Amino acid sequence: MGEVMENRRAFLRLAGSLAGAGAATGALAEAGPLDVPPWTREQGATAPGYGRPGPRETLARYPRLPPPFPGAVATVTPLQGLHGILTPNGLHYERHHAGIPAIDPDRHRLVVHGLVARPLILTMDDILRFPAVSRLHFLECSGNTPWLGAKPDWTVQDSHGLISCAEWTGVELSTLLAEVGVQPGAAWILAEGADACAMTRSIPLDALDGAILAYAQNGERLRPEQGYPLRLFLPGLEGNLSIKWLRRLKVGDRPFQTREETSKYTDLMPDGTARQFTFVMEAKSVITAPSGGQQLREPGFHEIRGLAWTGRGRIAGVEVSTDGGASWAEAHLEGPVLPRCFTRFRLPWRWEGGPDKLLSRARDETGYVQPSREALVAVRGTRSFYHNNAVFGWSLGANGAVTYAA
Amino acid sequence: MGEVMENRRAFLRLAGSLAGAGAATGALAEAGPLDVPPWTREQGATAPGYGRPGPRETLARYPRLPPPFPGAVATVTPLQGLHGILTPNGLHYERHHAGIPAIDPDRHRLVVHGLVARPLILTMDDILRFPAVSRLHFLECSGNTPWLGAKPDWTVQDSHGLISCAEWTGVELSTLLAEVGVQPGAAWILAEGADACAMTRSIPLDALDGAILAYAQNGERLRPEQGYPLRLFLPGLEGNLSIKWLRRLKVGDRPFQTREETSKYTDLMPDGTARQFTFVMEAKSVITAPSGGQQLREPGFHEIRGLAWTGRGRIAGVEVSTDGGASWAEAHLEGPVLPRCFTRFRLPWRWEGGPDKLLSRARDETGYVQPSREALVAVRGTRSFYHNNAVFGWSLGANGAVTYAA
Repeated sequence: MGEVMENRRAFLRLAGSLAGAGAATGALAEAGPLDVPPWTREQGATAPGYGRPGPRETLARYPRLPPPFPGAVATVTPLQGLHGILTPNGLHYERHHAGIPAIDPDRHRLVVHGLVARPLILTMDDILRFPAVSRLHFLECSGNTPWLGAKPDWTVQDSHGLISCAEWTGVELSTLLAEVGVQPGAAWILAEGADACAMTRSIPLDALDGAILAYAQNGERLRPEQGYPLRLFLPGLEGNLSIKWLRRLKVGDRPFQTREETSKYTDLMPDGTARQFTFVMEAKSVITAPSGGQQLREPGFHEIRGLAWTGRGRIAGVEVSTDGGASWAEAHLEGPVLPRCFTRFRLPWRWEGGPDKLLSRARDETGYVQPSREALVAVRGTRSFYHNNAVFGWSLGANGAVTYAA
Repeated sequence: MGEVMENRRAFLRLAGSLAGAGAATGALAEAGPLDVPPWTREQGATAPGYGRPGPRETLARYPRLPPPFPGAVATVTPLQGLHGILTPNGLHYERHHAGIPAIDPDRHRLVVHGLVARPLILTMDDILRFPAVSRLHFLECSGNTPWLGAKPDWTVQDSHGLISCAEWTGVELSTLLAEVGVQPGAAWILAEGADACAMTRSIPLDALDGAILAYAQNGERLRPEQGYPLRLFLPGLEGNLSIKWLRRLKVGDRPFQTREETSKYTDLMPDGTARQFTFVMEAKSVITAPSGGQQLREPGFHEIRGLAWTGRGRIAGVEVSTDGGASWAEAHLEGPVLPRCFTRFRLPWRWEGGPDKLLSRARDETGYVQPSREALVAVRGTRSFYHNNAVFGWSLGANGAVTYAA
């Protein structure tokens, strides 16, 4: 069994086990650091106006499943290779139902109508003039982490890659709704995308706290696959509600019962009924290092690293077990711990070289604790597809290989 | 003169002046939003595994001055087109003295020696095993904002583009120094890069609070132009000290008096002496919208937007003047306000259509207030090149054109 290290300074014993480390006077078999390496012997190149990762960095999104037709794809973020809490825009997960529309931003319009006093048609220039906000939030597809079909060779990109985290900038929806004047009796809003499936979802007005009409992500304007030039962004709610390529908002007195909230995005319960309108993404966490497909080189010090998040506010804590749940240790949370945002957790740990099972369990500021798979199945049965936030684990073999732990 | 809007809700008068807005039942000359636009009529494309900005988004870095030779370049970040506080990695400013070395990360080594008990040679795998931290910080070249040579057609990219802000992940330098054991008498550290100029700088050990051996930026591994695979990152200090392509750290008892801290990166004072070792980047701010080269379309509501930062901790407040400094209004600071990080400020404002002069003035949590150019010149003279943090302004013509304000 691994030893959870009580004291962050305990890693100081690391030095003796560093495979590549040696006294600075030691010799290295290859052209070593005390030589002048070839790249120091000549002037380097310059970078392009808009830069790219270096040639040795190969992180990429890929479809989680073969798409049934080209535009219906869900690509996953390589969480195993990311650090901190941000996802670069080029690696943010995608979910398209009809591909990415090639929108001319000068011709794009947002229509706001229904139970409002002053219906409006807005250009992107109009929207950019409104007062803006910028906030760091995660976005998670409710279909993240498949309930069934787990494979031993799963990576965390396979199991949890339908989530990403970014800084979103735009106009608070409440600002726009104040501008148009919501009328008495209004209770729901319909959001419609300009993609070829005209993706539509209904959201209750009272679930729109912090909602943003977003036009920028991590500083720059939205990427085409994230809704360029405008998307709805609903912090903490299932990703599908954050309608991309937003072209229309209609205020009404009841849900609009669209295809994507009746035949899809409902949770089939044990009694055969379907639970509709499950909006909030509950507290969840996953260990990203060590994680599936990785290989520990040798026993000794390793930092267990992972991500936690909750749609209900801030993460209050994350516990980590290295013995399959027999004992738990409190992980360090990297600040700032922001609401409805990724929180990076870390735990110093010494691997003794035997088999282990690593688990993480998040809790949020409401007191909610991420459930075990058994507890979740007891309520939800095994016919669910969406909203799996169960505790998740990795097996560590005596050879240091990391695989999915059932 | 413009009217600073006392009340954020006052923008509600915006609707009447929206150029593109109309009642939702109104007609538009072109194919309008109530029609189905062409991009909604067909399935869209899919995105590449590592995404790029859309074809209509053209933000790019460019050299601030023609480089004296190809590898000696300073490229500037397009602050006028960015939102929030983050800079995408592809747009982070660069400063190279000998181009970008093409380093093989498997062959790269970090040597730590000098006044230490246990000198070490570390591989990148070794460094990735140490306990890590992730922090959001700005990085500013001390040569940002030229003292002389201002031009009326300056954009904020020209005047302030040698600054960016990102999430940096790596090993705290204090962790590594504890590992090697700093010996009595140690007071300075030399950092050396693996580029063709072997960039070297000396930093006092007591100025290293929060220093990171950084290997990741905004989630992913460093870009080649930012020091891949490893750089020093010194929060709040002049950018040149954050040695890229870090290959060596040597602990000593005094500064090493390298070329870049004697003939360069010193401040020529009015009496002809040179001030050496000016490390901290003091509080500074700039308005990014409206800013040089932009054009206000019409009088009415506009949000003044800008960035503020200080190497000494957190920004405490930003004042904005729209009348050339005769009166000042307190801007709204977007949270979270983090130490040694960009802070976005915003101020609702109604432009009445006449000429105006827009200024911003930051203060930090130490009580320090960003000085006027006159106050700064009184101390520093006019022979300085580095460390210009003076209050900066934009002129707004009666035609809505924005230009540099002397």
